[in-house]
Amino acid sequence: MQAYPALEQRFARLSAISDAIGILAWDKETTMPLGAADGRAEQLATLEVMAHDVLTAPEVGDLLGEAEQGRDNLSIWQRANLREMRRTHTHQSAVPGDLVEARSRATSRCEVAWRKARAESDFASLRPLLEEVLIRTREVAQAKGEVLGLAPYDALLDGYDPGTRKAAIDPLFAELRRDLPALLDAALARQARLPAPPAMTGPFPVDVQRGFGEGLMVALGFDLRRGRLDASTHPFCGGATNDVRITSRYKESDFTGSMMGILHETGHAIYEQGRPRAWMAQPVGQARGMSLHESQSLLVEMQVCRTRAFASYLAPLAHRAFPALGAEWDAEALYRLSTRVERGFIRVDADEVTYPAHIIVRYELEKAMIAGDLAIADLPSAFNAAVHEPLGLTVPEDRLGCLQDIHWPGGGFGYFPTYTLGAMIAAQLFDAACRADGAVLPGIARGDFSPLLAWLRPNVHEVGSCVSTDEILTRVTGRPLDASVFKRHLRARYVDDA
Amino acid sequence: MQAYPALEQRFARLSAISDAIGILAWDKETTMPLGAADGRAEQLATLEVMAHDVLTAPEVGDLLGEAEQGRDNLSIWQRANLREMRRTHTHQSAVPGDLVEARSRATSRCEVAWRKARAESDFASLRPLLEEVLIRTREVAQAKGEVLGLAPYDALLDGYDPGTRKAAIDPLFAELRRDLPALLDAALARQARLPAPPAMTGPFPVDVQRGFGEGLMVALGFDLRRGRLDASTHPFCGGATNDVRITSRYKESDFTGSMMGILHETGHAIYEQGRPRAWMAQPVGQARGMSLHESQSLLVEMQVCRTRAFASYLAPLAHRAFPALGAEWDAEALYRLSTRVERGFIRVDADEVTYPAHIIVRYELEKAMIAGDLAIADLPSAFNAAVHEPLGLTVPEDRLGCLQDIHWPGGGFGYFPTYTLGAMIAAQLFDAACRADGAVLPGIARGDFSPLLAWLRPNVHEVGSCVSTDEILTRVTGRPLDASVFKRHLRARYVDDA
Repeated sequence: MQAYPALEQRFARLSAISDAIGILAWDKETTMPLGAADGRAEQLATLEVMAHDVLTAPEVGDLLGEAEQGRDNLSIWQRANLREMRRTHTHQSAVPGDLVEARSRATSRCEVAWRKARAESDFASLRPLLEEVLIRTREVAQAKGEVLGLAPYDALLDGYDPGTRKAAIDPLFAELRRDLPALLDAALARQARLPAPPAMTGPFPVDVQRGFGEGLMVALGFDLRRGRLDASTHPFCGGATNDVRITSRYKESDFTGSMMGILHETGHAIYEQGRPRAWMAQPVGQARGMSLHESQSLLVEMQVCRTRAFASYLAPLAHRAFPALGAEWDAEALYRLSTRVERGFIRVDADEVTYPAHIIVRYELEKAMIAGDLAIADLPSAFNAAVHEPLGLTVPEDRLGCLQDIHWPGGGFGYFPTYTLGAMIAAQLFDAACRADGAVLPGIARGDFSPLLAWLRPNVHEVGSCVSTDEILTRVTGRPLDASVFKRHLRARYVDDA
Repeated sequence: MQAYPALEQRFARLSAISDAIGILAWDKETTMPLGAADGRAEQLATLEVMAHDVLTAPEVGDLLGEAEQGRDNLSIWQRANLREMRRTHTHQSAVPGDLVEARSRATSRCEVAWRKARAESDFASLRPLLEEVLIRTREVAQAKGEVLGLAPYDALLDGYDPGTRKAAIDPLFAELRRDLPALLDAALARQARLPAPPAMTGPFPVDVQRGFGEGLMVALGFDLRRGRLDASTHPFCGGATNDVRITSRYKESDFTGSMMGILHETGHAIYEQGRPRAWMAQPVGQARGMSLHESQSLLVEMQVCRTRAFASYLAPLAHRAFPALGAEWDAEALYRLSTRVERGFIRVDADEVTYPAHIIVRYELEKAMIAGDLAIADLPSAFNAAVHEPLGLTVPEDRLGCLQDIHWPGGGFGYFPTYTLGAMIAAQLFDAACRADGAVLPGIARGDFSPLLAWLRPNVHEVGSCVSTDEILTRVTGRPLDASVFKRHLRARYVDDA
């Protein structure tokens, strides 16, 4: 067989293994009994090693070299696929197999322990496991950095978000750190002049919330034949190719929390379901990176669903589904609730004005941890000190502080900045979509999201990894990422709105 | 590393892959959206090829040979483990990798199609997929038979039930075919003289049935920390090591159907959970074979839970759980229902008197299919003709005939006889348990199954695959399998009972 087709076959196998890992990881969060944790860690570690072996077998380098020699005979998509194959191969072959396995085992165990540690606000019990995760992650960062010619933290970043460097993030985050405190003060002052949203008590039965959420997913374009909605401690979008599984968490007293979680994950999911069909199992058919991924969830959650237009579509639907929802919950009350700004401890509960502060804190801390400048033992106090400055909060216990997120226990150092980069991209993309098609905004008020989806499919989802995030942005917005549209959006919604 | 430890390491890897397959297969039956079927088939085929590769890599034969040279230095369990490694290796290496993959793909697709075909009683839509499955299975049987020196059907049997041959089954089944018709007539005549069980209408809410079933599982010894109960079209026991997942199916009008399904699968599950702890991930730690496995489910369902003693424990529990259960449902009525005998179309709904006829029909048909004497195109008419003779039934549509079972679509030719072998083993083992410990029978009436479990653990479960099924039987019952205790049990319960 020729080199390029042989590579496609090999990467399809890799995709099948990675899909299997996706389902096993989903099961771990939603379904698995606790006593199966060690066994599951073994299964995941074994499959990860096998994926690693498929990708780093000695013949792969030769096949890549040979295919690159013959690239003039390849189509544009094949050429981009080959480039992404090389990228993936470089990332993976930089890390020795036993380190991949050791890190996978460490993160699986640490994630399980995190669940208990968070519930009991017991950082001490997590500490040795998290230390092991950090040691392994630093080894991975070091190994990748050497091969990629990058600083260790940039090497981790590049694994989540190809091409993104801390040198590009630092000025963007500095701009937000400079401008957001005043914006937050102004937003809170404006909010104080408005009536507070009424109290929401319910009860809103969990199965009704689930069905309601599923209805919204379908309206937004989620294909239930190729995905599911379930419950887990921490909402996520996972699963496999053509089997996209999102989760939310429910409380009976308030349906909007689970709903917003579902809307957010739906944004991720429609990206996954909309990847280029012909390239689903190939590297070029993957999502472009985690910043662009997050932009799709935030475009749905923040740009689309926290608008007056969406609230006016939502209000009658919600009253039909939930008889316990009082008449005081008209569209304007739902809108005020969905745009409420508050200094709070929990990142995933944060509004879009305070969210960047949570991210910038974590970004600075994880850069220090990877650089070896911050030990796990000192993380709780460092975290609490860092949060105090931008948000003015004193963390009373670690479950409201550094224990709140699964990312570090799961080894996800380098992931946090993609949330705020995603928020900025979302603003820039949605602004472009509304300019490109005047039907997008009016559609939202009727629950017709098809004009938006029709714009996102060719301009974002179906591009896959054919070009870079900056090129996707430049094609449709005329320039690469900056903070201006995001800041304008925040000011318009939270400060200047009448 | 020395040969034997290297083999243990390799088989532990195999166990992790096989566990991953177990969870993915469970997910396919309980959870997966329909549009993911093709992808799941790819995932399962890929993992099966990888397991095959781990087992059949060129160095494994050398390691086995080397370890066998040094077997005098091994413990009894290590020696038995080595013997089972060799057995597994011989079975697997007999089949080329591309055939393993082709068969896995064919069965995955056929199982999905079967679900639709059964619902619509549409054999024609299944036929080409089932033909493909049969072709691949015959190729597997041929390949294994040549290496093992067995007829193709015996080679398939041996994969499910080590050491079992059709030459041993034929006379046992002939004895049942000879004696059961008269026993069935006598049972029906006796039953006609008794009052029929009252009508059961419910409603019995599915979630209450589920909780009720879970309570019985725990009473019987199921460890919920290492397993789950879910719902699927066809009840099964699957999952992974220390993650044993059983399923049942529910109807609101009758709680006893789901309950009996749960009790049956619980018997399988406590065997799985009771395998020797130190050898869980090794071949010698596996269940001894499917006949012994089925004996454990039937020991719980038939020998223990369709007794007056169990009914007297069940009645007050059921009335507490289900207010819709009328007072006419006393212990005696529940007992009469659970020992009801009826000529019916559906194997899984059959009582223990008619069940062997369903099995013998399938056994003869699948022997003919594997021998090439019966084509898939002729299966519906052959099935219907074969069922007519022992049960006197005329099959009106294929969903009540050859479409009712997932086994053949799933490639499970050679599996059916283990059900009736299991029924006979169950009778022989339970008889021995009751003789060995006088507390077993009285415990059942109190819902105390611990004396039974205490006998099963060392005598069956914790033996794993250390010795053969016949040796397990001979150790505790004094002789290998015969039909006498089973027939005596049926006569005592269905004919001679006052």
